[in-house]
Amino acid sequence: MSENPLELLMNPRSIAVVGASNNLMKMGTIQALSIIQDGYRGKFYPIHPSEKTVLGHKAYTKASDLPEVPDLAVFIVPSSVLLPLLESFGKIGTKRAVIITGGFRETGAAGGLMENKLTEIAEKYAIRFVGPNCIGIINSQIRLNLTIAAIAKNPGPLGLASQSGTFVTQTLTYLKKRGIRFSKAISLGNEVNIDIADALEFLGADRKTKAIILYIEGIRDGQRFVEVARKITPYKPVLAQYVGGTAAGARAGLSHTGAMAGPDFLFNGIFKQAGIIRLHGIEDLYTHGWALATQPPLRGSRVGVITNSGGPGAVISNSCDANELNVPRFSEKLQKEIRNLIQTHATGANPVDMTFDLDMRKLALTIPEIVMKSGEVDALIMHGVMRSGFLREVYDHAHEMLGDVSFDDFLKGLGPVIKEIFALPRKYKMPMLISTFMDQGDDYTAAFMNNDIPVFFSPEKAAEALASMYQYKRIRERRHHKEAALPPVNFKAVGIIQDALKKRQKALDEHAAKKLLAVYGVPVTEEILAKTEKEAVAAAGKIGYPVALKACSPKIMHKSGKGLIALNVEDEGNLKIAFRNIRQAAGPQIPILVQEMLKGNREFLAGMTRFAGFGPCVVFGLGGIFTEIYRDTTIRLAPLSVRDTEEMFADIRSRNLLHDFRGMPQVKTDKLTKILQAVGNISLLHPEIAEIDLNPIIIQGANPVVADALVVLAGKPEN
Amino acid sequence: MSENPLELLMNPRSIAVVGASNNLMKMGTIQALSIIQDGYRGKFYPIHPSEKTVLGHKAYTKASDLPEVPDLAVFIVPSSVLLPLLESFGKIGTKRAVIITGGFRETGAAGGLMENKLTEIAEKYAIRFVGPNCIGIINSQIRLNLTIAAIAKNPGPLGLASQSGTFVTQTLTYLKKRGIRFSKAISLGNEVNIDIADALEFLGADRKTKAIILYIEGIRDGQRFVEVARKITPYKPVLAQYVGGTAAGARAGLSHTGAMAGPDFLFNGIFKQAGIIRLHGIEDLYTHGWALATQPPLRGSRVGVITNSGGPGAVISNSCDANELNVPRFSEKLQKEIRNLIQTHATGANPVDMTFDLDMRKLALTIPEIVMKSGEVDALIMHGVMRSGFLREVYDHAHEMLGDVSFDDFLKGLGPVIKEIFALPRKYKMPMLISTFMDQGDDYTAAFMNNDIPVFFSPEKAAEALASMYQYKRIRERRHHKEAALPPVNFKAVGIIQDALKKRQKALDEHAAKKLLAVYGVPVTEEILAKTEKEAVAAAGKIGYPVALKACSPKIMHKSGKGLIALNVEDEGNLKIAFRNIRQAAGPQIPILVQEMLKGNREFLAGMTRFAGFGPCVVFGLGGIFTEIYRDTTIRLAPLSVRDTEEMFADIRSRNLLHDFRGMPQVKTDKLTKILQAVGNISLLHPEIAEIDLNPIIIQGANPVVADALVVLAGKPEN
Repeated sequence: MSENPLELLMNPRSIAVVGASNNLMKMGTIQALSIIQDGYRGKFYPIHPSEKTVLGHKAYTKASDLPEVPDLAVFIVPSSVLLPLLESFGKIGTKRAVIITGGFRETGAAGGLMENKLTEIAEKYAIRFVGPNCIGIINSQIRLNLTIAAIAKNPGPLGLASQSGTFVTQTLTYLKKRGIRFSKAISLGNEVNIDIADALEFLGADRKTKAIILYIEGIRDGQRFVEVARKITPYKPVLAQYVGGTAAGARAGLSHTGAMAGPDFLFNGIFKQAGIIRLHGIEDLYTHGWALATQPPLRGSRVGVITNSGGPGAVISNSCDANELNVPRFSEKLQKEIRNLIQTHATGANPVDMTFDLDMRKLALTIPEIVMKSGEVDALIMHGVMRSGFLREVYDHAHEMLGDVSFDDFLKGLGPVIKEIFALPRKYKMPMLISTFMDQGDDYTAAFMNNDIPVFFSPEKAAEALASMYQYKRIRERRHHKEAALPPVNFKAVGIIQDALKKRQKALDEHAAKKLLAVYGVPVTEEILAKTEKEAVAAAGKIGYPVALKACSPKIMHKSGKGLIALNVEDEGNLKIAFRNIRQAAGPQIPILVQEMLKGNREFLAGMTRFAGFGPCVVFGLGGIFTEIYRDTTIRLAPLSVRDTEEMFADIRSRNLLHDFRGMPQVKTDKLTKILQAVGNISLLHPEIAEIDLNPIIIQGANPVVADALVVLAGKPEN
Repeated sequence: MSENPLELLMNPRSIAVVGASNNLMKMGTIQALSIIQDGYRGKFYPIHPSEKTVLGHKAYTKASDLPEVPDLAVFIVPSSVLLPLLESFGKIGTKRAVIITGGFRETGAAGGLMENKLTEIAEKYAIRFVGPNCIGIINSQIRLNLTIAAIAKNPGPLGLASQSGTFVTQTLTYLKKRGIRFSKAISLGNEVNIDIADALEFLGADRKTKAIILYIEGIRDGQRFVEVARKITPYKPVLAQYVGGTAAGARAGLSHTGAMAGPDFLFNGIFKQAGIIRLHGIEDLYTHGWALATQPPLRGSRVGVITNSGGPGAVISNSCDANELNVPRFSEKLQKEIRNLIQTHATGANPVDMTFDLDMRKLALTIPEIVMKSGEVDALIMHGVMRSGFLREVYDHAHEMLGDVSFDDFLKGLGPVIKEIFALPRKYKMPMLISTFMDQGDDYTAAFMNNDIPVFFSPEKAAEALASMYQYKRIRERRHHKEAALPPVNFKAVGIIQDALKKRQKALDEHAAKKLLAVYGVPVTEEILAKTEKEAVAAAGKIGYPVALKACSPKIMHKSGKGLIALNVEDEGNLKIAFRNIRQAAGPQIPILVQEMLKGNREFLAGMTRFAGFGPCVVFGLGGIFTEIYRDTTIRLAPLSVRDTEEMFADIRSRNLLHDFRGMPQVKTDKLTKILQAVGNISLLHPEIAEIDLNPIIIQGANPVVADALVVLAGKPEN
């Protein structure tokens, strides 16, 4: 495997910056300032056409004047002058670049052409670059910061790759106030050269990064993205916000980085397939990522909640319950231990509600330690730990009455901040999260932040972050992904498809579609194509009544409501009537399919659709008349492993229908797995197929059988 | 209507406080301090057994020593001494109290008994009180504050009633930093005397309160709560968080205020019925309430999004789309106007993305005003408006290089804060919400807060608050609630129930249940009870084949899977076989119901269950085999108006099944309405009925007909 291009780009020994001046109101200057001011120890070379020095550093007029070949070149210049500048660095041998310059594909066709030229130059000189239209990168370990804001004093364990520069730079101060710090952060821009999969791979391998967050507006190479993520998620949590799946979101995405926006549903599926936790808000992305980056892994669903007031305890418990976590009633023994420490009207059952109490030793150390030690919980959420923030409120309220007592003296009444608290998560190997209404002006809040204990400013949010940790527990523990081998191409199938293409068909007829499925092992209805009434009677005799009759033509993709189907035909008399009716509706040349009537009350669907950049994607879900009502489906990229299909079965809301249900037996899901895998494999083996739709798949007894099938061929059908 | 007891309690001319001293580490003292320090202009009388003065005010040893009868008495004393103290105020004629003291019902049986005595004393002296076990009240208009924290300098338009004291007092500073201010706030405690419905009614009538938020752990009198809320919500938004519907949440609620916890599902239904917006987090409760309290009403779903960076614009748009709002592409004309003002690579389509730009006049005034004026949007969300916070970051980064330029001089480069911005919502009569990563340290953020423009610290949150405003638009516009008259008791129905009770039945048999339903106009299957095979044959002949056969006994509540039913019996031969089989399974004494077979693919359910404090509640939803799979149901308190039933039809996910669907006709929902109303009315008229279960109700053609019915009688059945 070749080295990830970000290895060198994120760790340059020397950097040239093109576009910085001494005007502090200009982006390029502010960004160069970050390199100088934030502690980067490598060489810094400003390039400027006229200035002798830039920000106190000797400036060079052009690349060829530089005393050495810089590892990295950074461009913050108008797009009109970028190309020759990049080429000049190519010529001296610089191999990595960050192109902050905007004005490419995101602005329209002319910008797109310029982007192509960018690619040509980069390829010519083997330059790998981030951007264009990005805000830069951060590597906290070497204190390299190309963004416009200052980075935190200490490196943190959270890695970020973002398709919006705002979430890398505009939030740095915001995050500092929440105690959240990056290891590495990468603003990707238009991803002409280095893309989000590269960034993910890089962060996956980075030892200083303990959890990865991604802000995504579109993915170019879905297959590679899933492959890369699938390798990382078993040992390092990856969380993502995807924006762009809805009409307005997609438009915003397109005009922003020009990224291809895929639908929301697809991203739900691929994130699940890859083991990525999906979040729907920027704040959640940062804070849940921070919890996963800093806390020991969550090993179970049992949460201890310790508070000094009932409301937050109730909110946390409620939110835990709504998120598959539980707040178990403590054993009598444990309750007794706790009750010994609290007032008689307080409760020790879990949530522990000490009622209002300023004894922080008890609230934040003694009781938490008893609970953690008990073995009765897997995580702890605390609300109400505070000191200077709260006393400041009281003092400000009261100081007129206090005479000459200073705030510091007043504060001493509560005792110092107890440092042992911060060691609890490591000591007991379980996550500890803090809920508080006090910001970093409170010395406990500040100390939690400085000690990498996540702080949440509304009680339900702590529970929600824990829910993401629980989701990661299940991802970590899910069964091993074992790629299933692709079967060989079946030449009978090739024949079926070629036949149809020769006839310029836009789809296979139902009978041909089922023959195609059958050669790849998919169970389909027993059926015979009849051209005459006599043939139909003979077919029904062979299959056995009741039968179904359907007009069968590649031109008929949707049959219902047009008089083209007769179900439950009981005998020859009825068959003849049905045959004539269908013939009348369909026309004299259309053959009629005589089909066994499947018996079963459970109907599912399987299907395939292709998304640009993702290849064939397989859909599974509830079929029959409820298909559109509940849209209870799930999707994965082909090929499907057994893990994929089993997760698909668990993913639909109607999953209980697959089990022993209302006297119906457990569905043979191994057979369903084979159907879904076949749908994926057929699509991989036969790129001429544009779409597949198997609906319904009826569960007869315990066995799935395809009752109707549509295979659409490439070249969009008009119907 | 009698005056709301909170009118006087919240507006006392004089207050006595029992439990304050000169020790500033005691709750009572801190609370008394709030009265003195926050600007209350009425009389303040501390009661203390030994101190001559308390907090600088003359103290009295007992109530009877007071120079006047105080309007309000506040108690912060141990529960063991409370009762005689309350009585002493009763004797002098004080009619209102706030009982902060805890240690009552929430601590167990002994506390419950003490609570009963509290009630006795209050009734004896006609004292109305808030509490016990609460934190007090706030009336910003008269600057009355009984809580432990200081209130904001200016009164705000948001009213709060909370069953947790924490959310009234612990959050005051937190809210100040978010620009959120109360008009009135009430901590309800155990609600022994004044309850949440009283508080809601009071806030509904309060002219200074423009929106109401409720934190609820349980409701004692559900009927009254809904009645009160239903009258307020057409003209004033009410938002609520309910916590307690899940196992852990319920336990926390119980131990906290001792409130009865009803299930989550019930509260979803009654909030919808009452027109209350339900939220699931404390932060959302405050911030969405604040948006509704401060902004002009939202009149449509079209949102203009104006930013200086693409990411936040995409996140806001995406979140709008996910919440039934839309971000329409601007007309060419409007886009052109905007493009004239922004850089060429920026976009004016909506979201407007100026790209990074510090021209705040354009971003925050010129472009917003053009968009508001255009008539193309109903609301505006802006991201990126900032000044001193951002420049402070740059300055801190750069000041070494700036020489002796002070921060103030540096700041002048950006021009002053533009004040016209804050008038935009009123001027154009539409909501304007701000998304920013800058806290109140930034002068724009602070100015927005001071001018009652809601600020959100993550872009998706602004969109989510707007979604609550849109929800309120629909509540405001929903059809008028017209109470349906209760029909008279039908004596045939009384007879059916009395017969069953005399026989000590725990339920009616299916046939009797349907007769009961039929007398109240509910359409049921045609059916005849047969004791012998001969009678069954005759019955089927009369009804017409195919028929259904069912064992019919009050002891058989659930028939499926036990051989007690035969469906689709086609002819006499099959009927005889089915009759014998069922007789064998059910026993020789059990009569058999011969029933018409309804034809229809759509199956719904209706039902009734009673919740303590709420009376009969009617359930409607999807029936048949998917009942447990999707749990697609909704609930309302009886009696039901036509508005209620129509909202129930719109509330289920499978609502499209009620329309013209896959060739099936539009369901006659007026007939479904009559069924649901009848279920409610029957339950109100016949309190002996504990539960009703009509499942399935089959849609035959367009008409709903009850195919199976269970009516459970009071006294819990064992089965």
